[in-house]
Amino acid sequence: MKSSLHEFLAPDSIAILGASSDPTKRGYKAMVGLINDGYEGAIYPINPKVDTILGYKAYPSMESLPGPAALVLICTPAKTIPDLLGQCGRNGTKGAIILASGFGEVDEAGAKLGQEVLEAAQKANVRIVGPNTSGVFNLHKKVNLLALDNVKPGDIGIISQSGNMLLALALEAESNGHVGFSTYVGPGNQIDLGFADYLQYLGEDDNTRVATLYVEGFKDGRVFLNVAKEIAKTKPVVVYKSGSTEAGQKAAKSHTGALAGSYVMTVDLLRQVGVTVVSQSDEILPVAEGLSLLQQANGNRVAILADGGGQATIASDRLCEAGLELAELSDATQSALRGILFPQASLVNPVDVAGSTDANPGLLVDCMTVLVEDANVDMVLLVGMFGGYGIRFAEELKAEELRTADAIAKLSGQTDKPLVVYSLYSHVRPEPLVRLRESGVPVYNSIEHAVQVLKALNERGAYIASNQRAELAQPLSPDAGVVATFEQAQRSGRDLFEFEAKSLLRTYGVDVPKELMVRNEAEFLEAVAEFGHTSLAMKVVSKDILHKSDAGGVKLNLSGEADLRRGHAEILAACKLYKADAEIEGILLAPMARKGTEVIIGVSRDPVFGPVLMFGLGGIFVEVLEDVAFRAIPLSRDDAHAMVNQIKARKILDGVRGEPAVSKDALVELLLKVSSIVDAHAEILELDLNPVIAYHDGYAVVDARVIVCQETPL
Amino acid sequence: MKSSLHEFLAPDSIAILGASSDPTKRGYKAMVGLINDGYEGAIYPINPKVDTILGYKAYPSMESLPGPAALVLICTPAKTIPDLLGQCGRNGTKGAIILASGFGEVDEAGAKLGQEVLEAAQKANVRIVGPNTSGVFNLHKKVNLLALDNVKPGDIGIISQSGNMLLALALEAESNGHVGFSTYVGPGNQIDLGFADYLQYLGEDDNTRVATLYVEGFKDGRVFLNVAKEIAKTKPVVVYKSGSTEAGQKAAKSHTGALAGSYVMTVDLLRQVGVTVVSQSDEILPVAEGLSLLQQANGNRVAILADGGGQATIASDRLCEAGLELAELSDATQSALRGILFPQASLVNPVDVAGSTDANPGLLVDCMTVLVEDANVDMVLLVGMFGGYGIRFAEELKAEELRTADAIAKLSGQTDKPLVVYSLYSHVRPEPLVRLRESGVPVYNSIEHAVQVLKALNERGAYIASNQRAELAQPLSPDAGVVATFEQAQRSGRDLFEFEAKSLLRTYGVDVPKELMVRNEAEFLEAVAEFGHTSLAMKVVSKDILHKSDAGGVKLNLSGEADLRRGHAEILAACKLYKADAEIEGILLAPMARKGTEVIIGVSRDPVFGPVLMFGLGGIFVEVLEDVAFRAIPLSRDDAHAMVNQIKARKILDGVRGEPAVSKDALVELLLKVSSIVDAHAEILELDLNPVIAYHDGYAVVDARVIVCQETPL
Repeated sequence: MKSSLHEFLAPDSIAILGASSDPTKRGYKAMVGLINDGYEGAIYPINPKVDTILGYKAYPSMESLPGPAALVLICTPAKTIPDLLGQCGRNGTKGAIILASGFGEVDEAGAKLGQEVLEAAQKANVRIVGPNTSGVFNLHKKVNLLALDNVKPGDIGIISQSGNMLLALALEAESNGHVGFSTYVGPGNQIDLGFADYLQYLGEDDNTRVATLYVEGFKDGRVFLNVAKEIAKTKPVVVYKSGSTEAGQKAAKSHTGALAGSYVMTVDLLRQVGVTVVSQSDEILPVAEGLSLLQQANGNRVAILADGGGQATIASDRLCEAGLELAELSDATQSALRGILFPQASLVNPVDVAGSTDANPGLLVDCMTVLVEDANVDMVLLVGMFGGYGIRFAEELKAEELRTADAIAKLSGQTDKPLVVYSLYSHVRPEPLVRLRESGVPVYNSIEHAVQVLKALNERGAYIASNQRAELAQPLSPDAGVVATFEQAQRSGRDLFEFEAKSLLRTYGVDVPKELMVRNEAEFLEAVAEFGHTSLAMKVVSKDILHKSDAGGVKLNLSGEADLRRGHAEILAACKLYKADAEIEGILLAPMARKGTEVIIGVSRDPVFGPVLMFGLGGIFVEVLEDVAFRAIPLSRDDAHAMVNQIKARKILDGVRGEPAVSKDALVELLLKVSSIVDAHAEILELDLNPVIAYHDGYAVVDARVIVCQETPL
Repeated sequence: MKSSLHEFLAPDSIAILGASSDPTKRGYKAMVGLINDGYEGAIYPINPKVDTILGYKAYPSMESLPGPAALVLICTPAKTIPDLLGQCGRNGTKGAIILASGFGEVDEAGAKLGQEVLEAAQKANVRIVGPNTSGVFNLHKKVNLLALDNVKPGDIGIISQSGNMLLALALEAESNGHVGFSTYVGPGNQIDLGFADYLQYLGEDDNTRVATLYVEGFKDGRVFLNVAKEIAKTKPVVVYKSGSTEAGQKAAKSHTGALAGSYVMTVDLLRQVGVTVVSQSDEILPVAEGLSLLQQANGNRVAILADGGGQATIASDRLCEAGLELAELSDATQSALRGILFPQASLVNPVDVAGSTDANPGLLVDCMTVLVEDANVDMVLLVGMFGGYGIRFAEELKAEELRTADAIAKLSGQTDKPLVVYSLYSHVRPEPLVRLRESGVPVYNSIEHAVQVLKALNERGAYIASNQRAELAQPLSPDAGVVATFEQAQRSGRDLFEFEAKSLLRTYGVDVPKELMVRNEAEFLEAVAEFGHTSLAMKVVSKDILHKSDAGGVKLNLSGEADLRRGHAEILAACKLYKADAEIEGILLAPMARKGTEVIIGVSRDPVFGPVLMFGLGGIFVEVLEDVAFRAIPLSRDDAHAMVNQIKARKILDGVRGEPAVSKDALVELLLKVSSIVDAHAEILELDLNPVIAYHDGYAVVDARVIVCQETPL
């Protein structure tokens, strides 16, 4: 079943509350937009002071309409809106677009008014777009409430928290002449409907092939992730998320009052659900366009076909920077190319035709055909002068270029390998390039943009393949003992002790080295007997001492009874000095961990995105270099693998300076296990395994901390 | 005195060797180019088979010309060229452009032919552009030997190792309508003239305001750096260097056969001499254009004035990513803005006019005037719809926008603070934006490009300021003892022993902890007496043992006679086992270094750029993260400071996890000292201080290695 938004985002009738005959007013422009574009449904201007507007009969109120308006555009000031929504409800309107600002984005009083609007809307059974929205269009329905000129209907849907961003994309589309749009929504303050709802709508909309979002902040991050995950299975979702720096976050807040969240985390979570994240604003339209035409690639190996060395070199650099590979061309391919091109052509990827095509551009498609047939090639990038041979070399070549364009388009239709073109002449929009683009082969005027498209095609292919084998971390049934431990902690309003946290982990099968809790002389002697002369670490256990090392509550490398007895006494003395009234639960004894690679696993509950897992290497890698990976819980096995391989310091996991590689498989199992545990226990507010020592044959959790959610009823 | 290149790159007469009446031939097209553009000098087609070409009298040979041709364009095949150069010499030609390929870029035989061409040219006293060059133009002289259509004369000079890159830039300039060019040179194989010569020419050329280079590889890197350093003092030099990845380096080699060198190092060295390095090919023209109009900024604090929140947010993110800052606006500024704009405008940078200008774009220049007057502001970026108010809102606004453009241009002329504009409407090229650009205010269609321009303006300002206080590392007079040490090492064909290297460093004032060389029992007892119970490190000294640790030749934390004696014996035994015939010079004893932060300083002599110093943090930072900074020797004090602050791990030098900050000043002194030492001693082929331990109050050089240049005559 389709979402209810279709009723009013593809509306059969539209009322304009605050319609006006004043050409500077939005209530006039919106009507002009509808009329000029030939909107086929009923248009109802609402204005009690006049009889007609632009030749349409004006009504004094929503109640006086001859029938229900599927959608109402409200152009009146903020304070009028709660009352007007009552009228809308009585009319039977399904959705209202509220343009007015002056709500939560301004001050507390505005936020309160926003709450009143929401309550009135709920009472009236009307859904709200906005307030403080730039508006909506649905070009396939000829609904253009923004009165934007020169926008073509097409297959790119836009949801943008900035109206000017839409305008920028529309002007860019106008200038390249290719791209058209389906539906646009400005979510504004999202007091009712938000990004998730609009994305759901675009996902279901047959006229939209790619959903493209400009986001300053999500309000409903977890719901958005769930929707995006479903949509991305079949339709590309492109997101530009602003706020990559603190300055940008502050700027975004002053703009729409949205909660910006951590940029790096948000990007990781979006990618996890198959969203294509673009990081430069001038890449939004090129990437959306590429994905609307080509959808996906089944690998990252690119063949470059070039008629100029400079561009071939630049494209090679950009490809590799983007994590793509230059395909290694097979002998058969090279030999076939040798048969087509001049002897001086370079047949190793990037293929440089070295003048072979100057008088004969048709050879380009012959080469592309050979490249597409190579099993080592996943995508083909044509870079250079194609489209401009007739301009640069000889007028007569124009006809051959047109034939070549048709042949390239035909080849593109016959293969599932993406063909992408960068041409120096695309600024000029010569006929062969227009022909190519109209046949579904994207053409770019920047090598950088073309490569970003290839990258997006590859990421999307990888996501779809990974999604097909998606295997989420296994759900766990909560263990009764663990539940009891949480109950006990919650009753005393404390977090878990380290030994409790570790015991929890052990219960669910996490490798935590054996430790003994020493609370009295008998337990002390048992521990001495148990560990013999093993080298041990000794740590204080007290709910009153959080930073054990600072308190002198940790001693390392102790062995034998005398050592241990002295260490025990010293720790107690130091902790007493540190905090005289600290309640000491006991002392934890554990074998010193073998040397290995320190990693950190942390879980927190993000106010926007819910439970999120973080992975990184220990020490400076997290604290100084901020080299970490995030995923929303629950993780799939592919997510866990991707996290481990995403961090810049992954080379260290692979073994450097003579150290063996650590077992990434063991880390993956641990990540999945932690995901399952947190999923099963809402009592866990935060969890920190720091450090975990990773080895070539496994890992050891050396320290564990669990912050207990004190509000969760059990 | 100007370089001799002016004689033939701004030639008063041109001969075309291999001129032709066949319109597909280069010898025809070049003539057409000259004729169509109205070249005012003499044109001499050389072709023994015809009488006239395109109405010009043809000559059978260079010798038969009525006078010397300042420049000759040689269009004939490779093998004909040595002989033809003889003719050119006898004619008195100053320079020859050789288009033919088939030289060093192809194979050994070609390289040999190139050598013959060079010798013939030297004998004939003719300088060579190329071979394998795309050609040359000088639009102010109406010399367009590439027969490029639609290129405007202007102030950007281009040197490009790829002819298609020039073509791409020319087409981009044609599409934006603004940019014009002065001189273009394709250096080709650079068998005679190279990048340094052409840059020198552009530096002296009054028609060129910005020199812009596309470089695959330098042949004469050190000479280039010296020239660039001089030019950059007064004229911006913009370089795109390809080969940022291995794939790109390989592609570049197959293209022109140039030595690509390490990209990261090359970029550091170029920036050291004031070159603006752009890393994306689609930024070349925007950055060159911006620098041609605005030259420099005196700080990195940018005020953003926006009429749309989305673009303000994106610009803020990009600015901060580029190392620029959002200026903190003074109270006076905010109060003045309050007087101009609607109450809901955001007056904290980025300034968002929030609709204030929709009906009144003239307010934008009022705001810009206020911003320019703020002492906290170094540059102003206008982002949004300017130029499109008349299109988007009301036709009548067009006139006010034009007046506003004039006022902005006037403001730009009155301030030394750069004003840069990003407009969503720049694709459409409306009149106000054309007016702005023509008055010297750059206008961009990408926020990303606009920010790159601001970044370049800031870097250039910083370079000029730094250059004014440039203080190079002090020259040293070589110490006689050190010279003797080198002589001794060279006589035995060995490198310096560690103790010799350290002694060298001490001689020149580097802090190397006291060490004692123990060659016999007497020295052993002296050392025992000297060091008492200090904890010591002990290392074998032998020219036959390079990897001391592997050989068991290193022991740490020894103290007292017994310990030392045992350690000594064990080292000798281990080394004997490792290499029975190793000649053991003795054992080095040194106090264990205090704990601190490990850094590495290395010097090597790069085949292209000469002596280069590298700095980085020890261990994984160099080996895994490749987080290092390079500078050519000799360093200035600013260079040394910049190196220390450039690495990503600089936060560690500033102190993390409770560690104190290390003394960067001490490291700067050490870098300068190393620079001076290497400068004074050509005997040093490589030098490695690894590790140097940096402290809050200084540093200690713990290990030093000097590889001796065995070929340098003393």
